[in-house]
Amino acid sequence: MERNIKLTIEYDGSHYHGWQCQKDVASVQETLSKAIKKLTGEDIMPEGAGRTDEGVHAYGQVANFRTKSSIPAEKFTPALNTHLPEDIVIVSSEEVDPNFHARFSAKGKHYRYIVLNRPQRSAIWAKRAWHVRGELDFEAMVKASQYFVGRHSFKAFCASGHNIKNFERTIFLSQWRREGDLLIFDTKGEGFLYNMVRIMVGTMVDIGKGRFKPEVIKEAIETGERNNLGVTAPPYGLYLMEVYY
Amino acid sequence: MERNIKLTIEYDGSHYHGWQCQKDVASVQETLSKAIKKLTGEDIMPEGAGRTDEGVHAYGQVANFRTKSSIPAEKFTPALNTHLPEDIVIVSSEEVDPNFHARFSAKGKHYRYIVLNRPQRSAIWAKRAWHVRGELDFEAMVKASQYFVGRHSFKAFCASGHNIKNFERTIFLSQWRREGDLLIFDTKGEGFLYNMVRIMVGTMVDIGKGRFKPEVIKEAIETGERNNLGVTAPPYGLYLMEVYY
Repeated sequence: MERNIKLTIEYDGSHYHGWQCQKDVASVQETLSKAIKKLTGEDIMPEGAGRTDEGVHAYGQVANFRTKSSIPAEKFTPALNTHLPEDIVIVSSEEVDPNFHARFSAKGKHYRYIVLNRPQRSAIWAKRAWHVRGELDFEAMVKASQYFVGRHSFKAFCASGHNIKNFERTIFLSQWRREGDLLIFDTKGEGFLYNMVRIMVGTMVDIGKGRFKPEVIKEAIETGERNNLGVTAPPYGLYLMEVYY
Repeated sequence: MERNIKLTIEYDGSHYHGWQCQKDVASVQETLSKAIKKLTGEDIMPEGAGRTDEGVHAYGQVANFRTKSSIPAEKFTPALNTHLPEDIVIVSSEEVDPNFHARFSAKGKHYRYIVLNRPQRSAIWAKRAWHVRGELDFEAMVKASQYFVGRHSFKAFCASGHNIKNFERTIFLSQWRREGDLLIFDTKGEGFLYNMVRIMVGTMVDIGKGRFKPEVIKEAIETGERNNLGVTAPPYGLYLMEVYY
């Protein structure tokens, strides 16, 4: 009998070309697929909830796969971990309903973005945060972040080249906090468009630099125009924290 | 004219055999020495405040060196950083009194130790925290930590094989806090013996596991006997946070 197994996965994305399997480069998905093959002998490509880009990290990526193996669901955690490299770990595993799909069943996601704001780069946060030099107007960034909350069209916050028709998304949380030199942005929403969190953060950092006023967010949401917005923040400051079902 | 330059240095110690220069292996000190050579042409081995072991990290290591170069003191920061690898960075540089010595002038140090307490290892904290499985009695660890504060002989908390005669040290701060799965120990003192923080943490974790009662710390301080104490915590959870002058 085939069972549907849900995995919660943590990874340091520094050495992977993102989640999704691609030809000739290392991906988290393919590394996981190989570990499953070693364990059960099956050729399985687990489906992930979020297709994180190259360099993006995850504390709580979710994936599912169907298996004929008789291994108890919770035993997949320690068993897969013995076949995974140091920078990928299964945090938990459980059997789920046959209809569960990591991506299509997801009700929401929590992303975090970490900015390091100080004159010098960091040795310890090198691949884990975006280093931004120069003073930032943190209050302006906080004000800007509040315009995201609610149900809006986020067309202006979506990388082009994707065949998406519905740009409406609901954001539940959009919040900055400061820990020493680190500026930490948490956002939770029912879903995010391609590169959306990175464009949100890049624009808010430009607001912090004084290039735009916080109200530019409100205008971009209303007009759907990308051309006035700031840079796309780099991937290595981004963390997929949790997926909600 | 020779000037004395003080550097504050951050590093990820994962890929170094500690601070101190050793034959045939990479050390932070030697990597820094090579960067100075590239910049000024001088053969200089900067003196560090703390000889951190292999794998130990630093947010605030301090070193000093004497130079004939005419580079303004504060310019050493950006100039050296262009010659340093991603996992070492100069945070600040300044000219100091000719008598200043990073190690002998130090009045105190702040160390942090990070324990990750959950069933599975971590991908993101792999080389940055000590992974301890199983439940820990956090209250017992907090109670144990309080016995360290004050002026005591720390003979029982010193790795053997070192020619030390005076084991008396004053600890100002010895404090645990919890952040999710992370247990974070901060200690500040006028000085620490060889491996002292790691033995303190290893013993407190054994207390958390119920192997000893918190009072074992008090007894070890009084008797100076190492033999009853717990394991030495691994180096990669340790961070030299700051050196006081």
